[in-house]
Amino acid sequence: MTKYNTNSRTVELEVEDFGKCKWHVEAEKSVQYTVLESYKLFDIENRDILLGHLNSRRFIIIDEQVNIRYGQRIEEYFDHYNLECRFLPLEVSEQTKTIQTVLQLVEELDNFGLLRRNEPIIAIGGGVLLDIVGLVASLYRRGVPYIRVPTTLMALIDAGIGVKTGVNFHTHKNRIGTYHAPQITFIDKNFLKTLDQRHICNGLAEILKIGIVKDRTLFNLLEKYSTELITSKFQNPKISDVILQRSIGGMLEELEPNLWEQQLYRLMDFGHSFSPKLEMSAIPKLLHGEAVAVDMAFSTVLAAERNLISTTDRDRILRLTRLLKLPTTHKLFTPSLLFDSMHEIIKHRDGLQRLPLPIGIGQADFFNDLTEQEIEAASDTLQKLKENE
Amino acid sequence: MTKYNTNSRTVELEVEDFGKCKWHVEAEKSVQYTVLESYKLFDIENRDILLGHLNSRRFIIIDEQVNIRYGQRIEEYFDHYNLECRFLPLEVSEQTKTIQTVLQLVEELDNFGLLRRNEPIIAIGGGVLLDIVGLVASLYRRGVPYIRVPTTLMALIDAGIGVKTGVNFHTHKNRIGTYHAPQITFIDKNFLKTLDQRHICNGLAEILKIGIVKDRTLFNLLEKYSTELITSKFQNPKISDVILQRSIGGMLEELEPNLWEQQLYRLMDFGHSFSPKLEMSAIPKLLHGEAVAVDMAFSTVLAAERNLISTTDRDRILRLTRLLKLPTTHKLFTPSLLFDSMHEIIKHRDGLQRLPLPIGIGQADFFNDLTEQEIEAASDTLQKLKENE
Repeated sequence: MTKYNTNSRTVELEVEDFGKCKWHVEAEKSVQYTVLESYKLFDIENRDILLGHLNSRRFIIIDEQVNIRYGQRIEEYFDHYNLECRFLPLEVSEQTKTIQTVLQLVEELDNFGLLRRNEPIIAIGGGVLLDIVGLVASLYRRGVPYIRVPTTLMALIDAGIGVKTGVNFHTHKNRIGTYHAPQITFIDKNFLKTLDQRHICNGLAEILKIGIVKDRTLFNLLEKYSTELITSKFQNPKISDVILQRSIGGMLEELEPNLWEQQLYRLMDFGHSFSPKLEMSAIPKLLHGEAVAVDMAFSTVLAAERNLISTTDRDRILRLTRLLKLPTTHKLFTPSLLFDSMHEIIKHRDGLQRLPLPIGIGQADFFNDLTEQEIEAASDTLQKLKENE
Repeated sequence: MTKYNTNSRTVELEVEDFGKCKWHVEAEKSVQYTVLESYKLFDIENRDILLGHLNSRRFIIIDEQVNIRYGQRIEEYFDHYNLECRFLPLEVSEQTKTIQTVLQLVEELDNFGLLRRNEPIIAIGGGVLLDIVGLVASLYRRGVPYIRVPTTLMALIDAGIGVKTGVNFHTHKNRIGTYHAPQITFIDKNFLKTLDQRHICNGLAEILKIGIVKDRTLFNLLEKYSTELITSKFQNPKISDVILQRSIGGMLEELEPNLWEQQLYRLMDFGHSFSPKLEMSAIPKLLHGEAVAVDMAFSTVLAAERNLISTTDRDRILRLTRLLKLPTTHKLFTPSLLFDSMHEIIKHRDGLQRLPLPIGIGQADFFNDLTEQEIEAASDTLQKLKENE
């Protein structure tokens, strides 16, 4: 037996029987990032996005539509501070949310000659753009820093504030991705002014989700102010600020202790069990939040059939969904798609359904014993409720 | 000003001036893995690789050449334990170390219907295969577990024991990648028996690196036993075990405190400043370790020209390189390639050269002030030394 000492300061070494060596490697990665409300981010007097760095270059990837509306102002902003920037407008959709788009951006970064740590990528756009750019930032040289500027309601309260990145693969949503925290995310609701109503409602679906599974007050606020939120596009300071802050705070409360999804029982998966297949089947007609709304309506009916919630609460949820101009059914949302979704989700949740269902408004629990019979029955009930509207 | 309390247990919220909210997200990711010496891993009585799990399926990605030699035995091993396995032999090279190969494997995982956490991928092969499969495991569903079984000397002491994954992009080596720790790496030097001599020497280059920059004893052992190591292919238990354990321990000692390369002054980058461009230019003729050897020889001459090491030590290093049947020069290793490498490495090391150079045998330090003149002069000197051999 060869006894041997590595002189290691940190690596723990055991010499086992017959001279077998065993090394234990152990390390902690500390991840920190900030989500900051910053109104009118690109007004000259607002210096938030500079982060105090007035020397380094910036690589800006901006949604093509956002660029049309805000590109000039943003360029003027960085010009004012004499900052060398590369602007890359990018047309994005669920169909171009692919690894090929990632490679195209990698090539642009190579051409720019991005430094590894001190020339942050700035991503400006909706959830799809932020997901793609997040993946690029996480893969390029095994990770470079990036800053998120969400410009849609969906991105402001969901895609923009977590650490997930990803692209689609064939018909599988976000099948390829990583966890890569931004340096900082800026919340500027001023962008919502120019968002069309359908995209406001799209984001409201995720806010509704938070209300249903964990925040009864938020649910009540949505019921009371739905029309005002939609018509003012979140520009009413009092109401919309409370709603945004409550949504972001609630979301981060769920994400932070489970940033790498080590725990697969996730409240925030409500509305995300059956919707991925629906969304990918109905591309490009159905938005993410719309697919989530259909899933939530169905899951709510499921919960009512199990007597987890009263029919009164079920109907309040369905009514609020409609008030938020979101769908509760879809012609492709068939029992067959629902069965397929269940099989897929079991793989994604490592062998169990782990299905979050509401047990009242503002509360939810997890279930692993959903049957195909129940799916069919709930599907029928939802259809009937829809017909009786 | 809207004062608002998120009721967050963990997310820290500040309400700034004018009602601006600021959330700080903070989390620690704990990474642990084991590197275990396990001789004759696929002998029936060796149960190490089962990890005590006798129910879950395995997805095995194996180098095509390794499969020809060991595939049947490995299949018999898993058959013996009645384990359902999918075997995927993969032909790999630096040219097919691309994202396209990653996508091909993602498709295979989809077809297999891999569970997210409990059906580990087992990667069996050399460094290129382990790098590719590591990236696949890190991207699929944002990360699934995998087990590494290195089968070459290079992989045993380098690629197999760290957490880096990656593929090439155009002519850039490992431009796209992640950090993704394996569950466990098994060190079975029995695989080296069937490795050709050139690949033994290829791995010896990385062992030589450790000797030069941090372990004088290892360097001395290499000097003393070079011929025996090469001819016995590391099958002599006493000497080769000490060398392997010292190399793996030394490497992990460097990696563990800097697992995500937050520190860009890295001793293990010795021989990896000028070699990536050489390697990618000389594909497929030059192996990784051979390119590293040429870089080390050049860097050693640079160090001697700066009087960081004596010419005696310089010549000892060059002589040992030759004893290990490794090259010290290459026709493509021109001043022009060296300049280009310097520019590239400055981007990769975030604005500074951070060049590790030996300051004696078994010690190194970092330098940021290398000039083009020095590169040319050292290049000339190395050429002359070569001619006088």
